[in-house]
Amino acid sequence: MSVLPDAVFFTEENSALAVAERLSKTERTRLSDALIAVVGQVHTIIKEIRPTPEEWQQTIAFLTEVGHACDDKRQEWVLLADLLGLSALVEDMNSRRPPSATQNTVRGPFYRPDAPHLPLGANISLDGVGEPLTVTGIVQGLDGFPLAGAMVETWQANSQGFYENQQPDLQPEFNLRGVFTTDADGRFHYKTVKSAGYSVPDDGPVGQLLGRIGYPLRRPAHLHFIIKAAGYQPLTTHVFDGGDPNVREDALFGVKHGLLGHFRKSAGEAAAPNWALDFTFVLCPKKVEARR
Amino acid sequence: MSVLPDAVFFTEENSALAVAERLSKTERTRLSDALIAVVGQVHTIIKEIRPTPEEWQQTIAFLTEVGHACDDKRQEWVLLADLLGLSALVEDMNSRRPPSATQNTVRGPFYRPDAPHLPLGANISLDGVGEPLTVTGIVQGLDGFPLAGAMVETWQANSQGFYENQQPDLQPEFNLRGVFTTDADGRFHYKTVKSAGYSVPDDGPVGQLLGRIGYPLRRPAHLHFIIKAAGYQPLTTHVFDGGDPNVREDALFGVKHGLLGHFRKSAGEAAAPNWALDFTFVLCPKKVEARR
Repeated sequence: MSVLPDAVFFTEENSALAVAERLSKTERTRLSDALIAVVGQVHTIIKEIRPTPEEWQQTIAFLTEVGHACDDKRQEWVLLADLLGLSALVEDMNSRRPPSATQNTVRGPFYRPDAPHLPLGANISLDGVGEPLTVTGIVQGLDGFPLAGAMVETWQANSQGFYENQQPDLQPEFNLRGVFTTDADGRFHYKTVKSAGYSVPDDGPVGQLLGRIGYPLRRPAHLHFIIKAAGYQPLTTHVFDGGDPNVREDALFGVKHGLLGHFRKSAGEAAAPNWALDFTFVLCPKKVEARR
Repeated sequence: MSVLPDAVFFTEENSALAVAERLSKTERTRLSDALIAVVGQVHTIIKEIRPTPEEWQQTIAFLTEVGHACDDKRQEWVLLADLLGLSALVEDMNSRRPPSATQNTVRGPFYRPDAPHLPLGANISLDGVGEPLTVTGIVQGLDGFPLAGAMVETWQANSQGFYENQQPDLQPEFNLRGVFTTDADGRFHYKTVKSAGYSVPDDGPVGQLLGRIGYPLRRPAHLHFIIKAAGYQPLTTHVFDGGDPNVREDALFGVKHGLLGHFRKSAGEAAAPNWALDFTFVLCPKKVEARR
């Protein structure tokens, strides 16, 4: 019988080290480095929480359910990462911009890459349902130089908080989506309707779990944009309605001070107002490295 | 437009705090406390690893696959928890025993609750395939007092490393399983065959990922036991073959110094040896609280 010192065996005290040592003997790759980091922190979490056997079984059951809820149309793991700020963190780490540039955000699940190219002034509300909104804006560089010929792609929810690809039977295809090109002064304008905020899905395991403890699941009203100009870093961002009651508690942690838009009542009756938004997008040249 | 200070919004720097603050406003439960711990550590992991967008997508895809691989017969999340030492950690934390008591381990996925009760001396190898092994042992309390009438339940893999419920068409039902009762001296004995070590499943996403970097996926040869005696804490444990070449690298981190058995060649030719194992199980009275 071999004589094996206690030290080489797993104990509650050395648990993370025992696993990390085994990982450190594998081929060194991004994966093994990542697993070493994951193992260290996850053992710390478990020692902090001290789950009972029943709680541990519930945890395994929850993780399993999250996977089972994922299909072609639903990504419950992304939703969990979104709601715990992980998606926003990864996005922020990978798209650092100088402070004066417009900040990047996650693209979100409702983007379609095939929206129609439209002339300036077009109305992207194909069903006309909602309070009219005129969006005007300018695309410029860090130095304030206006960028002519920039591509401004937008998509948004309707006045009930639904995107057209969530309601293929209720909204016209490509409703509230369009691609515009800035004029010689770097400006663009189009017509639409004011979008409403909405709740992220709460009928899956993630929404059920977090909803049960009263965790915020709502997004404030917002418009999505992707802006591209030759020589500049592409920008994927939101413009949020600064007057939305949920603007401090965006479920996806996308709201930043520089992304608050001022939606002004421009005309019309109080019961049926017209709205206007003017927004400045500041792009970062490709050659400028973000500060690390 | 509301004036909202930057500080209330999510940034790369305050990310974990921003989420924890939101969680701390929910109803305070075990769940919200656990999520606060999870969020803090997971943000730390992400900042340490700094995944690229592609690596993050691969992570989401892996987590999704792990769930999709789970079904009635396969629990890939438990396998991942096993291989990263998380199952062993939770087990150890929830079954602390005094140092002189036999240590508890995970039960593992191959247990069946309905094994037959057998007289002492019975042979649990129903097909007789493998090298004969005689197991003898005693069940006693911390004070060395032998425990008569204790229940000794055992199950094991065959000489090829498979449990009967993995091979319903190749092995007789209940092969290598049985429940015995200790005699007046607290002793038991039965006949079986020497089990072989085996690999955990490597055809699912977890085995594929960890196998790719050469992470150990083998378990050393072992016998499983559940021991119960009136007035004592039930014991679920393994006895490992101290001579198995993989005994230092059990994929499930179950090996402990006190669980190494000495499998002796007792008789027979070198090419067809007979084996003997004698083991002492020390149970902990129900009233003794484990040290914390």
